[in-house]
Amino acid sequence: MSDTYGASVTLTVFGESHGPAVGATVTGLAPGVPIDLDFMRAQLDLRRAKGRISTARAEADEVRVVSGMYRGAATGTALTLLIENTNVRSGDYAKTATLLRPGHADYTAYMKYGGHQDARGGGHFSGRLTAPVVAAGSIFTRLLREKGVVIATHLARCAGVDDAPFSDDPAERAAQADLLNRADFAVLDEARGREMTRAIEAAAARGDSVGGVLETVLLGLPAGLGEPFFGSVESTLAALFFSIPAVKGVEFGLGFGFADRFGSTANDPFCMENGRVVTATNHNGGINGGITNGMPVVVRTVVKPTPSIYIKQQTVDFTARQNAELQINGRHDPCILHRARVVQDSLAAFGVADLCGQHFGVRWQEGTAWNMD
Amino acid sequence: MSDTYGASVTLTVFGESHGPAVGATVTGLAPGVPIDLDFMRAQLDLRRAKGRISTARAEADEVRVVSGMYRGAATGTALTLLIENTNVRSGDYAKTATLLRPGHADYTAYMKYGGHQDARGGGHFSGRLTAPVVAAGSIFTRLLREKGVVIATHLARCAGVDDAPFSDDPAERAAQADLLNRADFAVLDEARGREMTRAIEAAAARGDSVGGVLETVLLGLPAGLGEPFFGSVESTLAALFFSIPAVKGVEFGLGFGFADRFGSTANDPFCMENGRVVTATNHNGGINGGITNGMPVVVRTVVKPTPSIYIKQQTVDFTARQNAELQINGRHDPCILHRARVVQDSLAAFGVADLCGQHFGVRWQEGTAWNMD
Amino acid sequence: MSDTYGASVTLTVFGESHGPAVGATVTGLAPGVPIDLDFMRAQLDLRRAKGRISTARAEADEVRVVSGMYRGAATGTALTLLIENTNVRSGDYAKTATLLRPGHADYTAYMKYGGHQDARGGGHFSGRLTAPVVAAGSIFTRLLREKGVVIATHLARCAGVDDAPFSDDPAERAAQADLLNRADFAVLDEARGREMTRAIEAAAARGDSVGGVLETVLLGLPAGLGEPFFGSVESTLAALFFSIPAVKGVEFGLGFGFADRFGSTANDPFCMENGRVVTATNHNGGINGGITNGMPVVVRTVVKPTPSIYIKQQTVDFTARQNAELQINGRHDPCILHRARVVQDSLAAFGVADLCGQHFGVRWQEGTAWNMD
Amino acid sequence: MSDTYGASVTLTVFGESHGPAVGATVTGLAPGVPIDLDFMRAQLDLRRAKGRISTARAEADEVRVVSGMYRGAATGTALTLLIENTNVRSGDYAKTATLLRPGHADYTAYMKYGGHQDARGGGHFSGRLTAPVVAAGSIFTRLLREKGVVIATHLARCAGVDDAPFSDDPAERAAQADLLNRADFAVLDEARGREMTRAIEAAAARGDSVGGVLETVLLGLPAGLGEPFFGSVESTLAALFFSIPAVKGVEFGLGFGFADRFGSTANDPFCMENGRVVTATNHNGGINGGITNGMPVVVRTVVKPTPSIYIKQQTVDFTARQNAELQINGRHDPCILHRARVVQDSLAAFGVADLCGQHFGVRWQEGTAWNMD
Repeated sequence: MSDTYGASVTLTVFGESHGPAVGATVTGLAPGVPIDLDFMRAQLDLRRAKGRISTARAEADEVRVVSGMYRGAATGTALTLLIENTNVRSGDYAKTATLLRPGHADYTAYMKYGGHQDARGGGHFSGRLTAPVVAAGSIFTRLLREKGVVIATHLARCAGVDDAPFSDDPAERAAQADLLNRADFAVLDEARGREMTRAIEAAAARGDSVGGVLETVLLGLPAGLGEPFFGSVESTLAALFFSIPAVKGVEFGLGFGFADRFGSTANDPFCMENGRVVTATNHNGGINGGITNGMPVVVRTVVKPTPSIYIKQQTVDFTARQNAELQINGRHDPCILHRARVVQDSLAAFGVADLCGQHFGVRWQEGTAWNMD
Repeated sequence: MSDTYGASVTLTVFGESHGPAVGATVTGLAPGVPIDLDFMRAQLDLRRAKGRISTARAEADEVRVVSGMYRGAATGTALTLLIENTNVRSGDYAKTATLLRPGHADYTAYMKYGGHQDARGGGHFSGRLTAPVVAAGSIFTRLLREKGVVIATHLARCAGVDDAPFSDDPAERAAQADLLNRADFAVLDEARGREMTRAIEAAAARGDSVGGVLETVLLGLPAGLGEPFFGSVESTLAALFFSIPAVKGVEFGLGFGFADRFGSTANDPFCMENGRVVTATNHNGGINGGITNGMPVVVRTVVKPTPSIYIKQQTVDFTARQNAELQINGRHDPCILHRARVVQDSLAAFGVADLCGQHFGVRWQEGTAWNMD
Repeated sequence: MSDTYGASVTLTVFGESHGPAVGATVTGLAPGVPIDLDFMRAQLDLRRAKGRISTARAEADEVRVVSGMYRGAATGTALTLLIENTNVRSGDYAKTATLLRPGHADYTAYMKYGGHQDARGGGHFSGRLTAPVVAAGSIFTRLLREKGVVIATHLARCAGVDDAPFSDDPAERAAQADLLNRADFAVLDEARGREMTRAIEAAAARGDSVGGVLETVLLGLPAGLGEPFFGSVESTLAALFFSIPAVKGVEFGLGFGFADRFGSTANDPFCMENGRVVTATNHNGGINGGITNGMPVVVRTVVKPTPSIYIKQQTVDFTARQNAELQINGRHDPCILHRARVVQDSLAAFGVADLCGQHFGVRWQEGTAWNMD
Repeated sequence: MSDTYGASVTLTVFGESHGPAVGATVTGLAPGVPIDLDFMRAQLDLRRAKGRISTARAEADEVRVVSGMYRGAATGTALTLLIENTNVRSGDYAKTATLLRPGHADYTAYMKYGGHQDARGGGHFSGRLTAPVVAAGSIFTRLLREKGVVIATHLARCAGVDDAPFSDDPAERAAQADLLNRADFAVLDEARGREMTRAIEAAAARGDSVGGVLETVLLGLPAGLGEPFFGSVESTLAALFFSIPAVKGVEFGLGFGFADRFGSTANDPFCMENGRVVTATNHNGGINGGITNGMPVVVRTVVKPTPSIYIKQQTVDFTARQNAELQINGRHDPCILHRARVVQDSLAAFGVADLCGQHFGVRWQEGTAWNMD
């Protein structure tokens, strides 16, 4: 079950960082859904390592669709896509094979897989697995945009620097989302972004890494998506976001800020606006009782600092079963937030697509309007 | 899918607050697993409304096991349990049927179910659905304790008051967990607990409600549980906890505190201790790469203030589609944290049982040791 | 997994023959789907034991819907129904508890459940579990009839006697289906039916039991239902029919008759008829490549003779682990075909509903026409 | 759901006959399970087209394992294998693109996929999809043999010729199974096999095709596998076998022969044999109440004649929506039973592996003995 997610549409990821290829299989696509390879490439490009604030490993990330596509559209049967691993330097990992990297999955992989795991480059635990997630997710991101749903993520905080918040004005917010979705470094305030970059570079210069908070908005969702108990919108998005290596917290709306509120200052009053029911505030982040209420869905994740740092660390030699020191080489990211944001967007798109399918049926994917009317 | 959770064991919840009964079906129990009705009652008692800080609705919560049990043990086929709704006063809700309660699922239920929902008392969205969750969860809580796994939750913060933290000493921590699991009001520091109670009562006195943070520890889990991508321990517990009405955030270990850390201050160094691999710190909350590392799992949820308050609120009359004022009557909790904590324990126990089943197979439930050796 | 079936709608059965109750939970119902308790009772009446050719155990089969129904319609959340076991005489089984009944699940239950099974009256293996299947299935049978889909089953062969075949004329066939669905003993030719009854009574008189073949037609299904590989219409119906205790074979169209055909005498030529594509013959039983082609789906099951006979049999005492003789008492059916046919109809309706949901989405259940147009 | 099968292990198939590749993803493999590429090739070789009684399309069927394998063994994460399509002559299908081939899925694919299907060479409906099934199945076939479980299939009847039956003697039967598993044309009596071959060639010579019956035995299965209601051994194997294009019936033990039996001549008496419980006869084909009883499982499928024949046929031009004549070219099998038998073996191995996982847990795959003791 661990490799597959979803009910009305499913996403299976496979591959290891230094194996032949990584890839994904998507089922539940409606026949005729466009498979837009240019858009897929553009989304992968947002995830690609760039500049001094990313790893030096550069992968072409050429996607090969081996099934389920005919004449540029989904056939309706399983769509599998492959991304070959070409730029592999496993030698970098030889010396650390038995030295457990703190914060990494080395130890837990041993305990789970008993030594049969492909540990090279992190194997199945590598962030490289998120490349096929972005490729597959691009299908749903594109589909949702046709329906008027836009998903966008910014680095709300990184390396101790806060970004500006989203605007409360719907039109401005939509414009911000649009800009974010084309930006290499997704911030709402470019000056803050430059400050973040400098802080990341400073940490990288001393061999260290940084963490931060990613905030995602989902604009244009219809009310009524999600399920009352298991399968709430929160459950769905959280389960997906916690699949992203490094995410250690997920919160909606006010999130942990709810702890110090009273009911009277937490509830969002309903009011009529142009014949539609809306809420005057959006503390609940667009979700009541696990179900969308038509307001923007607002969700934040915390991304821990990349565990691979170049500073010497205390650890254990798993084979010798004794304490040891670890000095990591290899190519690593001092910060992954600017790359991870499109992964978060992609998983959000997938999660929403799955909820739509459960609510509207498979045919929601067809045409340009919701098939709910 | 929404009513059922789990892979190796499944939990289905059903029922409405003012319908005939609420209940749950559990599948995947190994034949012979004890169904301890006394322990089930004791766990339900921890959830029961008590004193001035809870609703005045008192339910006997008598559990009737209608299938899957024979001579006090699981048969191995579907176990269904029923809790009748006896103390129902639907009249209280008549006047609010069309007035959307802010913060509640009234509006989203209309949008999802089109008016066919049983809205009385919140229907399927009621916290009452957590009673069968606790009853079913007690089977797994008991089973895990036999294996040496103890789960315990305290009100880490409530109504603006912080509880004391868990001890770092394993023996003390185990003793604390044991005390929490028998306490009516689960705090580590009783003085802080009294302070919380007073703050809740003060809010209740003016018709308001309060929120807070529940912190759960899972002690004694073996390393190697969980899955690398979808199905991480974080994904599993978060999906379950976000099913609890009012939970709006979930974080593990340092959680959102990771945002301001560097890799060098976030990583947990490994070291040998009595021949076992442990970590010197536990910032990652017992989970690396989605998989348990043998350290205590530490997870916190934020619980928003109960939306049902007695203060007049602005809202919308859904039928008339116009703005309106709402003055709620009925019986409501000014705080649910002290009742919700056993729900969180129960879902944690269920989630762990499911992960164990995926790792060790169904037979992990048998005997008193892990069937991994 | 064993207790639940389905993807877009799910059916979970629970209970034991001599436990407190048997029941079922249905998920995936669209809000507003009628729950017609009169029709449910009528369907259960078709399954009820009657006359000399059935068991003397008479159950009232009163259905109690404990969740998921409000004002006569589905709410959209899990619907659970209960049927209490009232007429239980477990004493009849005391002496056979350790004597394995040939043809029964006594031995395999021991091997699977290790003695924890509730063996009284066959426990979870009892045909009594088919009562909630009929009750739950009635919801889908009714829903499909509103869409113009009629399912009907006759005893194509029983106790060595053949019934007449269905008519090839669509209008006549529809009339036959209608008659079958109201008949106590479902045959197309009443004279043959009386002959069958006499043959059953003759076998019963000497303590023996009989088998036969049930043939089901599904009329009015749209083309395009089913899946190309796993999830074919054949896979779906066969998986469901093989759940019925005593079914040991399932065939579609010519079935095993295909073995001696050539391609030229097996293929169904396509032709146009009133602007629709039809086939000139229906050897494939309405299914090509696992998907409905719009012709009647024709499927037959073989039902083995009831294993509980009053003739002395050779067997094994499981406790003593030695050979023994078995003389069964208790109340048993000399023939179950006339009772099982509505079970087969109910499971067919459930399977079709699940396939419709996968094809048309949940909303196919709404309104009176297919939501495909 | 349609592309994936299984609970404890899952199998997903993807690809189209004339697309880039066909393949499969397997999840739920225990870490360390051998991936024996030589055995995989040998199994694929049994499926390969050979001689005059098969299609002229020859595919190398080179398997590339792109994930989930490390140093010749399963890592425990998703294993994906690819088989490129190299020998593609889509031109053969150009003229029939709009002419519906009788007995084929052409029409139903149009009705299900609305023209978006890749119709070339049958697309996703092609028998070519069974190549990855055999490749993936070989992993389980090999694993089961290590546990002492042998699965073997013979052409029990083909083109009107009966093969000899399996021996009743366990040692002889095991030797027969062993021979079948190395034979190109799987019959128990070679003279009958030559007779079948002649009959197939005679049909092929006049452009026609033949059907038949495949009988599979599963030897060495422990008692206790399978589930009481949904998920019976019969349900599992039937659902899988009905996925094979051309299978139109499945029966167990006496199968449709049960129709004319009495309970007294259908029941299998239990008796002790060398301290084990066995049955004196095996009419029930090794399954009671849906669960294995330790006797050989015996199951037969009927395989309809290949629908692609070279004889002129009446049909419909789907585009013009008028009657038409069809003369098929291309490369087709006059008989597929001798190729399909290893597909049936592979699916049986997969189904058994899934049932074992549900019963014994994932760890059953480890070691050489059942992890049940």
